[in-house]
Amino acid sequence: MEKKRLTYRDSGVDIDAQDEALRRIKGLVQGTRTPEVLADLGSFGGLFQPRLGGLEQPVLVASADGVGTKLKAAFLSGVHDTVGRDLVNHCVNDILVQGASPLFFLDYIASGRLRPEVLAAVVTGLAAGCRENGCALLGGETAEMPGFYADGEYDVAGFIVGIVERPKLLDGSAVLPGDVLIGLPSAGLHTNGFSLARKIFFDVAGLGIDDTVKELGQTVGQLLLAEHKSYLKALSGSLAAGVHALAHITGGGLTDNIPRVLPDRCAARIDRGSWAIPELFTYLSERGGVAEDEMFRTFNMGIGMVALVSEEQAVELEAHLDGLGESHARIGEVVRGDGGVHYA
Amino acid sequence: MEKKRLTYRDSGVDIDAQDEALRRIKGLVQGTRTPEVLADLGSFGGLFQPRLGGLEQPVLVASADGVGTKLKAAFLSGVHDTVGRDLVNHCVNDILVQGASPLFFLDYIASGRLRPEVLAAVVTGLAAGCRENGCALLGGETAEMPGFYADGEYDVAGFIVGIVERPKLLDGSAVLPGDVLIGLPSAGLHTNGFSLARKIFFDVAGLGIDDTVKELGQTVGQLLLAEHKSYLKALSGSLAAGVHALAHITGGGLTDNIPRVLPDRCAARIDRGSWAIPELFTYLSERGGVAEDEMFRTFNMGIGMVALVSEEQAVELEAHLDGLGESHARIGEVVRGDGGVHYA
Repeated sequence: MEKKRLTYRDSGVDIDAQDEALRRIKGLVQGTRTPEVLADLGSFGGLFQPRLGGLEQPVLVASADGVGTKLKAAFLSGVHDTVGRDLVNHCVNDILVQGASPLFFLDYIASGRLRPEVLAAVVTGLAAGCRENGCALLGGETAEMPGFYADGEYDVAGFIVGIVERPKLLDGSAVLPGDVLIGLPSAGLHTNGFSLARKIFFDVAGLGIDDTVKELGQTVGQLLLAEHKSYLKALSGSLAAGVHALAHITGGGLTDNIPRVLPDRCAARIDRGSWAIPELFTYLSERGGVAEDEMFRTFNMGIGMVALVSEEQAVELEAHLDGLGESHARIGEVVRGDGGVHYA
Repeated sequence: MEKKRLTYRDSGVDIDAQDEALRRIKGLVQGTRTPEVLADLGSFGGLFQPRLGGLEQPVLVASADGVGTKLKAAFLSGVHDTVGRDLVNHCVNDILVQGASPLFFLDYIASGRLRPEVLAAVVTGLAAGCRENGCALLGGETAEMPGFYADGEYDVAGFIVGIVERPKLLDGSAVLPGDVLIGLPSAGLHTNGFSLARKIFFDVAGLGIDDTVKELGQTVGQLLLAEHKSYLKALSGSLAAGVHALAHITGGGLTDNIPRVLPDRCAARIDRGSWAIPELFTYLSERGGVAEDEMFRTFNMGIGMVALVSEEQAVELEAHLDGLGESHARIGEVVRGDGGVHYA
């Protein structure tokens, strides 16, 4: 009697399918090349020779992030080419708030069984996000892990490295009482609060991913998948103008993210009536019966980025944003206080 | 009638548990600090000011990787403090083969429901790996994604950035026919071939994670979780000695990884009898009925890293390794040929 001969494919890993997908994404990745990229995909590590001319104390700023449960909306709707841009833009914003410009990005995509067309769609979004932010998609890992992910599902993580001259690092230490908080609008939920938003849309309201939310005039899928904005173009020019700090409004909302850049003995007073809270958030609050404090700690409430600037800088920044056609609102000010955010 | 008030915790995300875990790992991360690290955990991005003194053309080498299905062995055995070292060492080796020394590492850990003690164990392994390789654990993302991962399971990805002076980049272009292949021993499966290995241990042999494999004198858990070795200390000193290329033997085995550093019109001839293939691999081959070619394309077969060096360099490298107490074997040579690996 002959024993059954096992191959690696029998165990659930398809190296040929992986190779096919890698070929498909190679072209996408090449479109993100910057002159600083030295190596081709397929070598062990990505090579990047940063231009250091003029920099005396270059500091590398690195950040890791994921898309979180927003991915479930991609799975349900079958739309896979937006979450990549979400991830890149989120990462770009996370290092922008420290004053850094992005250099390169790497991804990690894990699934149970690799679907080349889904992988290509995810990488399409990643590559588009990288191109738009002038950031090289330097490499990544595509992991096929049978038994880890439900059929058709995947997880994706991103790693970004940027650079800033040390004296230009933003760390909040320049923030002073009297500084103005200028909020820049978000585009929907960005990448936070999805567990709660899905619960409200699907469980409480009983809607499906393709159902139109009458009050909002868009489908649940469109509302959930609206892409996270990058604030790089809006704010990179302004950094030279002496912005005191930037806060990226992610998990924890305005309530938890603004304190991350407040120095000791400062607090933030925010006027909730100073900007038009998008109807999406009003809907979620009313439909889900979510208290206002919880809303402001879970969702961005229509503000994706906050700049903390002196009164004079505020005027300059507003003119800069107007010139770019970017919306903005004065949403509050820095006061003496306990490090927290207080709403009026 | 009052509506049920939903909070973020109702939807499955526990921000307080996350905060507790973050406090626990903070100390672990601090132990990996190098003088180049500028910022504390908790800021948006990690800050790293590389020492560039003496470097004229510094090149950043970046790589992303995961632990793959080796994680299943951690879940089954409840041992969570080894996979972190696996991941760091894998990443360190991936950039070492391009001549780079590690600067910093970031992680991405995703689970359904965060268990602070498991997270702390995973980070313990990551921090130990980073310390041992002189690499700062600069930051990371801990994602709680309800509904994505089975209870008690998680995924972990790593991202490393290293540095090398451009003329010292290793890319295989220096490899010549006549070069000697020096193999350095692996410590078990490292991080590849786990889907097949688990199938053989669990399905074919019918063993459990804590059962002892009689032929091998260790439990299945011990065999599966043996940690991926870092070759940084063994080989970093040797790079100055003019090694032509290094190949990290990961997924695809000797068969697929050595060609990644072979120039045109070269091939590798490997003598399968030139080193003692560990009994683990003989067991897997016999018990699973896996053909020899498949074995060499799936597992490392006892060789975790291969150095390609001239005959004179080989003698020098062997003396260097002997001085460090590191084992090695001449496993083959570079010949004129088709870019492939041929076994004798």
